[in-house]
Amino acid sequence: MPENDKQSLSMVTCTAPVNIAVIKYWGKRDEDLILPMNSSLSLTLHQDQLKTTTTVACSRNFQQDRIWLNGKEEDISNPRLQSCLQESILWRLNDFDCNGTCTSMTSCSPNDDDDDVKIWFVLVYTLSQLFGVESEQLSAVARQGSGSACRSLYGGFVQWKLGEQLDGKDSLAEQVESESYWPELRVLTLVVSAEQKSVGSTSGMHTSVETSQLLKYRADVVVPSRMEEMIRVIRERDFPAFGELTMKDSNQFHAICLDTYPPIFYLNNMSHRIISLVHRYNQYYGETRVAYTFDAGPNAVIYTLQDHLSEFVQVVRHFFPPEVSGEEFFKGLPVCSADLSEELKKDINMEPTPKGIRYIISTKAGPGPCVVKDPNHHLLGADGLPKKSVISD
Amino acid sequence: MPENDKQSLSMVTCTAPVNIAVIKYWGKRDEDLILPMNSSLSLTLHQDQLKTTTTVACSRNFQQDRIWLNGKEEDISNPRLQSCLQESILWRLNDFDCNGTCTSMTSCSPNDDDDDVKIWFVLVYTLSQLFGVESEQLSAVARQGSGSACRSLYGGFVQWKLGEQLDGKDSLAEQVESESYWPELRVLTLVVSAEQKSVGSTSGMHTSVETSQLLKYRADVVVPSRMEEMIRVIRERDFPAFGELTMKDSNQFHAICLDTYPPIFYLNNMSHRIISLVHRYNQYYGETRVAYTFDAGPNAVIYTLQDHLSEFVQVVRHFFPPEVSGEEFFKGLPVCSADLSEELKKDINMEPTPKGIRYIISTKAGPGPCVVKDPNHHLLGADGLPKKSVISD
Repeated sequence: MPENDKQSLSMVTCTAPVNIAVIKYWGKRDEDLILPMNSSLSLTLHQDQLKTTTTVACSRNFQQDRIWLNGKEEDISNPRLQSCLQESILWRLNDFDCNGTCTSMTSCSPNDDDDDVKIWFVLVYTLSQLFGVESEQLSAVARQGSGSACRSLYGGFVQWKLGEQLDGKDSLAEQVESESYWPELRVLTLVVSAEQKSVGSTSGMHTSVETSQLLKYRADVVVPSRMEEMIRVIRERDFPAFGELTMKDSNQFHAICLDTYPPIFYLNNMSHRIISLVHRYNQYYGETRVAYTFDAGPNAVIYTLQDHLSEFVQVVRHFFPPEVSGEEFFKGLPVCSADLSEELKKDINMEPTPKGIRYIISTKAGPGPCVVKDPNHHLLGADGLPKKSVISD
Repeated sequence: MPENDKQSLSMVTCTAPVNIAVIKYWGKRDEDLILPMNSSLSLTLHQDQLKTTTTVACSRNFQQDRIWLNGKEEDISNPRLQSCLQESILWRLNDFDCNGTCTSMTSCSPNDDDDDVKIWFVLVYTLSQLFGVESEQLSAVARQGSGSACRSLYGGFVQWKLGEQLDGKDSLAEQVESESYWPELRVLTLVVSAEQKSVGSTSGMHTSVETSQLLKYRADVVVPSRMEEMIRVIRERDFPAFGELTMKDSNQFHAICLDTYPPIFYLNNMSHRIISLVHRYNQYYGETRVAYTFDAGPNAVIYTLQDHLSEFVQVVRHFFPPEVSGEEFFKGLPVCSADLSEELKKDINMEPTPKGIRYIISTKAGPGPCVVKDPNHHLLGADGLPKKSVISD
């Protein structure tokens, strides 16, 4: 739906959410089509706390396709970008009113996430809005940029189905339950102190497919039954079962990384400590009240229920005393303050690690991508170039 | 062969080596008989650098069985100790000359190794010498105390065969090649700065058997072919193939630990850095010149060939500048000094980690257990109690 397809300039701005997998995607069965070795399942997070925004402008007056990510111009010949744009060229040829040249500007909030996964997804989504592409084609196109991002196409719990067809046409994202299905569910992202950068997820999973003997067994035998179980426990809103399976699948994904040659380490000592804290906390209560999951990096994502949120945040503050206070440390949905019993602190029995966690983002489930109506929120000006206010951000 | 079986006191002292697995043992198919889920293979290290010494004394005049480990008296009712002693009681009943009460003293060198695996093994071996038990029974009896220690029964490359019999009678240690077969092979133990203690190996492997879905696949499918390949590459003295398979199997063992629930972490950030250093060093030369393996802890054992030893030690010194110098840092078989090219240091491209490695032990392949002839080396006096000089160590 171009904003103005009678004139020479069309512009549309969209926001897209982040998704966090509870059954992990790791390994492609087809590198060209980006087809996964196993199905995966994630929760889409709320965009009030984490989102990616893209504006695409299209005009016959522009001289060349250009793209900016977080204010920095990117090389248009980047293969993954080309893969997205080639699809967009097809759309453009079908749309005579819009036969022009595009510029695009994407920005992530918060700005410190260096994963470009979300960027490709929101770009494809915004192009699809600009050119009026059907949403059922979108999942397959979004996959071209980054596989797991296609799960951001819907809100709530979303599965990316393995599919059976050779051409991958049935390897699509599908909503399992909407963002309002399990309202008590809460999500904390614990951003740990950064050390050296590890292997990127695209090359990492390629090496795993080439070298890990355990990966095929995971994909063929373990994940299919875990997918069934995960969908069941989500539908039953069974937190202990959901949390345990989430933790097991995170651990198995990192086990596969270790079984890769050379091995890939995404978890560091801080990640190990967070894992240990979660297990000790759950052990204290004799049930799984809190669960962790880790993607291709050391930051923990914590799932818990509203009832246990404030105490667990206090536990994290106690065992990882922050360097900074207030909103610099704790961002997003607020939590009540909570007192910790001496018994709990004693039972957890861990040495506090000051400054181990840089900050926390508190959020919950949220909807899929949105089109932004207010033209003030466009990231590009009428000339197709980033607005000054965006560049200086 | 009791030293003195005509008089009332019999005493024998033995030393036993340490072995380091290159195909790892992790998981029992029978907890009572200590039968493994898969075969394993190790190199027996030379006792000039690392050994465990035990003296057993037996006399009708002693009032009760007593045992000391590293100078500290142990509770004789310890289940694993009982399991060893019950077997020894059987031997005693068969040996009328020796129908008495035993005391035993064991010490490890260097003294800082807290793994009790070796202690049980040398105790059983020494008892077998005292009571004149056939060596073919020994493997099965030694397993009772600690599975992997039974591989210390022989020098050089030793496999502990899975076996097929339900009673475990064919799950035995067997020499693959003697300690003189591959004389260029060298071994470095890199002892890293200790952090918190992790899960012990006995309970860890029990939890893995209960919870890791990947372990059974490893034991049933991966290890059998790896055992064949490992024996072949050892016989061919093919270091690149030996090194690569050793590293892959170490990584897979730690992957299984991560796939355990709750997950077990033996590797820490320092271990990760050593792994990274080894891969970067090999990458620089375009071949596997150095290989790591890690057991149930963060310390690395490095295999390499004599030709590459001195340079690699210098690489370790460069990227892990030691806190102490000389023999406090580098113990065991000496190495020549070596200059590192600027190109190599630049290509490895790692930030040095001062004091990351506490010390290095340099050693090579060695023989199996030995009986010590010199009575001055007995750790017990004629009264069956530890000699004062041993206690005050």
